[in-house]
Amino acid sequence: MNEHSPLEETRTRPSRRRGREHNRGAAAAGVQQLPRRPIARLFQPMEIVSADELETIHDASLKVLEEIGMDFLLPDARERMQAAGAEVSGERVRIPRQMVAAALSTAPSRFTLHARNPENNLEMGGNVLHFGSVSSAPNCSDLDGGRRPGTHADYRRFLKLCQVFNCIHFLGGYPVEPIDIHPSIRHLDALKDAATLMDKPFHAYSLGRERIRDGMEIARIARGIDRRTFECEPSLFTIVNTNSPLKLDNPMLQGIIEMASANQMVCVTPFTLAGAMAPVTLAGALVEQNAEALAGLVMTQTVRAGAPFVYGGFTSNVDMKSGAPAFGTPEYMKAVIVGGQLARRYNLPYRTSNTCAANAVDAQAAYESVLSLWGVTMGGGNMVMHGAGWMEGGLVASYEKFVLDCDLIQMVMEFLRPLDTGADALGLDAMREVGPGGHFFGCAHTLARYSNAFYAPLISDWRNFQQWQAAGSPEAQHKANRLWKEALEAYEKPSMDPAIAEELDAFVAHRKEEGGAPTDF
Amino acid sequence: MNEHSPLEETRTRPSRRRGREHNRGAAAAGVQQLPRRPIARLFQPMEIVSADELETIHDASLKVLEEIGMDFLLPDARERMQAAGAEVSGERVRIPRQMVAAALSTAPSRFTLHARNPENNLEMGGNVLHFGSVSSAPNCSDLDGGRRPGTHADYRRFLKLCQVFNCIHFLGGYPVEPIDIHPSIRHLDALKDAATLMDKPFHAYSLGRERIRDGMEIARIARGIDRRTFECEPSLFTIVNTNSPLKLDNPMLQGIIEMASANQMVCVTPFTLAGAMAPVTLAGALVEQNAEALAGLVMTQTVRAGAPFVYGGFTSNVDMKSGAPAFGTPEYMKAVIVGGQLARRYNLPYRTSNTCAANAVDAQAAYESVLSLWGVTMGGGNMVMHGAGWMEGGLVASYEKFVLDCDLIQMVMEFLRPLDTGADALGLDAMREVGPGGHFFGCAHTLARYSNAFYAPLISDWRNFQQWQAAGSPEAQHKANRLWKEALEAYEKPSMDPAIAEELDAFVAHRKEEGGAPTDF
Repeated sequence: MNEHSPLEETRTRPSRRRGREHNRGAAAAGVQQLPRRPIARLFQPMEIVSADELETIHDASLKVLEEIGMDFLLPDARERMQAAGAEVSGERVRIPRQMVAAALSTAPSRFTLHARNPENNLEMGGNVLHFGSVSSAPNCSDLDGGRRPGTHADYRRFLKLCQVFNCIHFLGGYPVEPIDIHPSIRHLDALKDAATLMDKPFHAYSLGRERIRDGMEIARIARGIDRRTFECEPSLFTIVNTNSPLKLDNPMLQGIIEMASANQMVCVTPFTLAGAMAPVTLAGALVEQNAEALAGLVMTQTVRAGAPFVYGGFTSNVDMKSGAPAFGTPEYMKAVIVGGQLARRYNLPYRTSNTCAANAVDAQAAYESVLSLWGVTMGGGNMVMHGAGWMEGGLVASYEKFVLDCDLIQMVMEFLRPLDTGADALGLDAMREVGPGGHFFGCAHTLARYSNAFYAPLISDWRNFQQWQAAGSPEAQHKANRLWKEALEAYEKPSMDPAIAEELDAFVAHRKEEGGAPTDF
Repeated sequence: MNEHSPLEETRTRPSRRRGREHNRGAAAAGVQQLPRRPIARLFQPMEIVSADELETIHDASLKVLEEIGMDFLLPDARERMQAAGAEVSGERVRIPRQMVAAALSTAPSRFTLHARNPENNLEMGGNVLHFGSVSSAPNCSDLDGGRRPGTHADYRRFLKLCQVFNCIHFLGGYPVEPIDIHPSIRHLDALKDAATLMDKPFHAYSLGRERIRDGMEIARIARGIDRRTFECEPSLFTIVNTNSPLKLDNPMLQGIIEMASANQMVCVTPFTLAGAMAPVTLAGALVEQNAEALAGLVMTQTVRAGAPFVYGGFTSNVDMKSGAPAFGTPEYMKAVIVGGQLARRYNLPYRTSNTCAANAVDAQAAYESVLSLWGVTMGGGNMVMHGAGWMEGGLVASYEKFVLDCDLIQMVMEFLRPLDTGADALGLDAMREVGPGGHFFGCAHTLARYSNAFYAPLISDWRNFQQWQAAGSPEAQHKANRLWKEALEAYEKPSMDPAIAEELDAFVAHRKEEGGAPTDF
């Protein structure tokens, strides 16, 4: 059974090669992968706290919002909250529980996040699971070039990897920060790239009004739709990490207001590390996470009732020896699962993450990521940020980890595929044919199915020790190193109407002439 | 928070050091680990097939037993089965479904497996989870000595590691085969070691009547009990891997008969690799696994109604490119979970495994193991063979992987620990004290709890990149390499009544004089 690869049929083949960028390799490179398909969870998500315990957490969060309140630094935001019924005193905003209940009654439980390629639209909510790229890492790394600050070239390479891999459904932010572009215009170049090198949904940072408005305009132009359609069809999302504990700053609140006003998707994800920005108890950190996420929900629904909102959870713990953030821990898993119970109680789509704190693509990187995916999958995540490539608790986007994570995501996809228990699959005839003491390698039942019977991993090396040793004893990261290069070779720029490309270019050029977004430097 | 290690209190300290073996290091070495505690699963195990689909698999297995049957090579076994109602024709034994139903009605759903130290007794069944050592590897490996055939010295080292780590609850077989002991007496030396270097439950191989009888006698003497008590208190177990498909050979059947006659624990685990020894479809492989496990159950209950039996599942797939066994795959996870549904349908304790096919302690080793543990934990495993140290699909016992797996098992333990949602844990007072924009590092709520708030991993390196790089960029396996040596330093031989030790020595010496067990060489 050596002669055929079971995944031949799903090999991504560049059908045409355009321009110099696509002609680096001599032969057409490919990447074996699963076809794009929706990932549905057909079982009940796991529950680790009882309904009563969940109400205890919910109620404590409401107390936090009513009694302690949150600091909203933006006057406009405070005014809107006060007008809607909040008690405002200085920067402090106290939110009565009726406001939370009202917001929960208007926020949609499901909605569509639109991509410029409709095949890449994402249904948010329910039992569907989507995976995004690593996001917001200041550094990147690969085995050849080592660890280094991100550049525009690296940024573009990661975008291409996101486009090539079918299991990556959206761009969650800049995979790596392109620090060689001045911050005043960085968002313009970066989002134009996101809108042109990919045709999947993307994200804009809530870094003030100008940037988020530019992001919306780029998303709108890329889809070739008018403003009215854009307002009916969420086509951009922003993730807001609150300044935990209990604070929202100006750029965040501006982002929420701009995005919610335009009916675009807002995800509020408190950064509640137990023991640092949140109570050292996991339940306490979850109470704080929940309070802050609900405050974000109330803000969006106050701006525009019905605006699409995603409940974000990112509660983890710190290393109590050093204070360093820890990820992919048992505590993280539990927080993800209780976060899912809360999001489902509120009937809101749920954002989670594939996290790890490792410094190398070693066993630690793998176990922290799989433990994260375990929590995310069993806990009912709908949207998995940092799905592929996240290292060092977010400080590094790793090329090798990106491919490793794509393999892990594909394994989750296969795990979630229903088991066929039809008469043919039960194999009684095969067992009759083979009988006691035989083997199934050559029987008709096997021959009819072997080419796609099982998932063929990207990374796993299943050669025996002698063959593996003769090949130089490669470890997982070495194979990943080869694969991301092959994937880049297989990249094809998705087609775009030339008129749209021209309009995008003109918009970005015009905004650059205006100086982009204001900076202090 | 650098000055105190949160796990100081659980550090295992050798209180006394006896003899030369314990004086290798200058200072008392220790290993930070969780205290011994039962591992209970407080949530409903995962179900991936419906009750109807489960009945379809069950019914197909009964058809296999009735229509195809299994080859029982031992005449004594066939006679017993025929006398109990089976249809025997040559070596073929066809088992009517009433025999299966009768066996299910007599097999206990829970029982105690006794250790010579009663604190290490294991409750088998229900929602309790126990982890065993790597077992039956012909080779061992570590970063210093590389990969090599197992020796008596390596065998003894692994036994000591099993004794040191609280999360290892039983010895599942020889962690590594001590090939420098002649096979006729290997079981005598190896099981005497298991009974003296450890005080946890252990396993004897079903390699013919003599060896299993010797194993029972060693287990009985080690516990200091008479034969009658031994028959009331299962104190030894054997794992029988059927010769899949559908065959049981002489030594296996002799083992089952001897052990069941003496009311000792038998676990029948079909080795049903889909596409090789079982149908290429997962459902088909599960039908075969289930038929063979049920045949083993019927055999044990035919020998002695009520004898303790454990349902074993080991269904995985092969690499369809090479035919090589694959482990820790999405298919393996699904098979483990359906196996759990079957075992619970039958109200039998369920044996699973922590598997991996990797050649190195790299990312692959970690992700295959965590995916296995995911299936095992969510699928309701009671007994996890190969819990720590299994590599290359069972060809290698790795010292570094052993420690890595202990860390993973401890993370599973922490994951399964219930979340405290009591009033104090909700942290409202801490949030009131800290308020918006503060931090929780120094608040009273944190100071009262930080020393044991979170799990402190054995392996994970959470230093920042610069510190980690300055330390030589160690990967997970390098830390594991240091830790297994420290664990060996911390080993203390469990105390044993000198009279019992003398009796054991005398028994083994006497059996050696008799020539041990017969061999062909």
